[in-house]
Amino acid sequence: MKIIVAGGDGFCGWPTALYLSKQGHEIAIIDNYARRKIDNELHSNSLTPIASLEERVEKWQEITGKQINLYEGDLTHYDFLKEVLKKEQPDAFVHFAEQRSAPYSMIDREHAVYTQENNVTGTLNVLFGIKEIVPDCHLIKLGTLGEYGTPNIPIEEGYIEIEHQGRKDTLPFPKQPGSFYHLSKVHDSHNIMFACKIWGIRATDLNQGIVYGLETDETKLDPVLTNRLDYDGVFGTALNRFIIQATVGQDLTVYGKGGQTRGFLNINDTVRCIEIAAKNPADHGEFRVFNQFTEQFSVGELAEKVQKVAQEEGFDTEIAHLENPRVELEDHFFQAVNTKLKDLGLEPYLLDENVIREILKTVMTYKERVIEKNILPQVKWK
Amino acid sequence: MKIIVAGGDGFCGWPTALYLSKQGHEIAIIDNYARRKIDNELHSNSLTPIASLEERVEKWQEITGKQINLYEGDLTHYDFLKEVLKKEQPDAFVHFAEQRSAPYSMIDREHAVYTQENNVTGTLNVLFGIKEIVPDCHLIKLGTLGEYGTPNIPIEEGYIEIEHQGRKDTLPFPKQPGSFYHLSKVHDSHNIMFACKIWGIRATDLNQGIVYGLETDETKLDPVLTNRLDYDGVFGTALNRFIIQATVGQDLTVYGKGGQTRGFLNINDTVRCIEIAAKNPADHGEFRVFNQFTEQFSVGELAEKVQKVAQEEGFDTEIAHLENPRVELEDHFFQAVNTKLKDLGLEPYLLDENVIREILKTVMTYKERVIEKNILPQVKWK
Repeated sequence: MKIIVAGGDGFCGWPTALYLSKQGHEIAIIDNYARRKIDNELHSNSLTPIASLEERVEKWQEITGKQINLYEGDLTHYDFLKEVLKKEQPDAFVHFAEQRSAPYSMIDREHAVYTQENNVTGTLNVLFGIKEIVPDCHLIKLGTLGEYGTPNIPIEEGYIEIEHQGRKDTLPFPKQPGSFYHLSKVHDSHNIMFACKIWGIRATDLNQGIVYGLETDETKLDPVLTNRLDYDGVFGTALNRFIIQATVGQDLTVYGKGGQTRGFLNINDTVRCIEIAAKNPADHGEFRVFNQFTEQFSVGELAEKVQKVAQEEGFDTEIAHLENPRVELEDHFFQAVNTKLKDLGLEPYLLDENVIREILKTVMTYKERVIEKNILPQVKWK
Repeated sequence: MKIIVAGGDGFCGWPTALYLSKQGHEIAIIDNYARRKIDNELHSNSLTPIASLEERVEKWQEITGKQINLYEGDLTHYDFLKEVLKKEQPDAFVHFAEQRSAPYSMIDREHAVYTQENNVTGTLNVLFGIKEIVPDCHLIKLGTLGEYGTPNIPIEEGYIEIEHQGRKDTLPFPKQPGSFYHLSKVHDSHNIMFACKIWGIRATDLNQGIVYGLETDETKLDPVLTNRLDYDGVFGTALNRFIIQATVGQDLTVYGKGGQTRGFLNINDTVRCIEIAAKNPADHGEFRVFNQFTEQFSVGELAEKVQKVAQEEGFDTEIAHLENPRVELEDHFFQAVNTKLKDLGLEPYLLDENVIREILKTVMTYKERVIEKNILPQVKWK
């Protein structure tokens, strides 16, 4: 298949592009390097030193003989996007190209507005581009499990049958997103659902959980292919951040009580989920939603898992409960369905001590790069 | 009370500003004249000749002695908005200042993106402005009944209790908006709900039906105060458009089967609903939703009502079923709850033949201004 990976320079996008290329698909990457620019803005860095996208792609071709086409540009620039679609004529468009940090969207008004305009307009442009130029192209859109919030009922995959006053309908699952970033994904989902309905676009919305891990079989092939790893308070997510805290001798910082429960998955499952979605496209007019995670944990449980492995590896680590910078329930019901991807063949890599140990050992190699003052949360929701 | 009416130059905003001023509230209007500029863009006009906003406000002061402060500017310009909030220190912020036409949002990509960026960013700015400058100010936001679409279950006011697998929660009512405009209102609703939750903002989302009518007691006081009246295929809405079609000898154009059922209300009820919301503010942190309509009709029923009155007035009018330019169900269940405003004291003006006759007679005065070629729909959803 011909597949565009938009946001193919990022933490999920880069390993996805390589994995799909390895499987024999023809890959083109679109990226505006926003993530690298934000590192500069926030005076933060990837724990791992990452090569430029050009170097990465050249190295991949050198090692595997496989070419990846590169397009530097922004999805909010429609003329640019149209040219890429005309040239590439993709069968699938994998859309990672959004501002993806909740804390970043909560820094201030400008960051909230940037996040929503960038994400919503970029996705609108992709929808119009598919409609106008490649109407058979399957949109594979990265959403987030956080679109649902934490309702007191089980979370279904996108839709729920509701019986009300003796009548029934299957309706979009109600959304309660918890940041301006998560809201942007909800806006996208509604826009995409509508475009599928009126234009017959085929789309899969992957409501992804929190991704942990770092390397895949492909990124391990050469240091130039190494994936980025975020550990700072703005872009670093729970499990990865805890592991890095352990290696630099910081306490593992759990926000509030730590009963916040979320869906998680390994980066190695992310890349496979994308291929599963691509190989099993939605029908024309279908807005399909998959909950893309493999296991659910509370943040407190994760901290304990990391603490245990870290201690075995000689790091004496404490768990500290910080005042929660977010507004969220800290002790709540959470149960989300995730059968659709498994029904299509996903066999999850589950989280065990060896997985944590492997990440921890990789992280240790780079620990001198950690900017410690960036780890603690500095963005508050209130 | 001190009340800002954003979008106070528009079809709903202007009579609302006058009505609230008449009741003794101190009113300031914010408007960027977008609606007048769009008339130029579309080569369309208001059926009624409308004075400039400066003339309108001067005349109002001349007649009533009441002053309305004017601010020309755009809510997407945050520095401007902040200055107005600092100066006015409003108790309530009535937010009509959005692009409000579904067909306009469906013209092409640029109009879709404009509608969503303008509406979503404007409302985000209002939320940040309230948070930063006037945290006690009550946001009264115009949403639309169209946010809900046409589910096969009764539509509640904003929230629905869902029982699922033995558990219960009260969740946001699922949304199925039918245009990029309606989608922008859904995005707003989610953003406002979140801002209420994290910042304690007080907000009322008025999910308004289709407004018919033209004049209120206040706009009738002088021709300079006359309200605008839209009849074109882009901004003209069902009942008003039918009445104008009857007076110029066009068929009443029902889109498709005409079984599309919607909530309606008289412009005289719009202005009273706003005051009811203002006088009964939401609590801090409360995101309150009122379904603001008084009756529901199918489009076909409305056409028949207009046809009957028109015939009595000597206009021999036919009902024509056009191919539907929209993508929507044409024969469906529709039942929406609208008790909250009535519980707070709204006594609706219901639609009867006299109401239609009165609008028709006003319209006749201006019928030479009709640009007939603008009436038929030219924007298609597909």
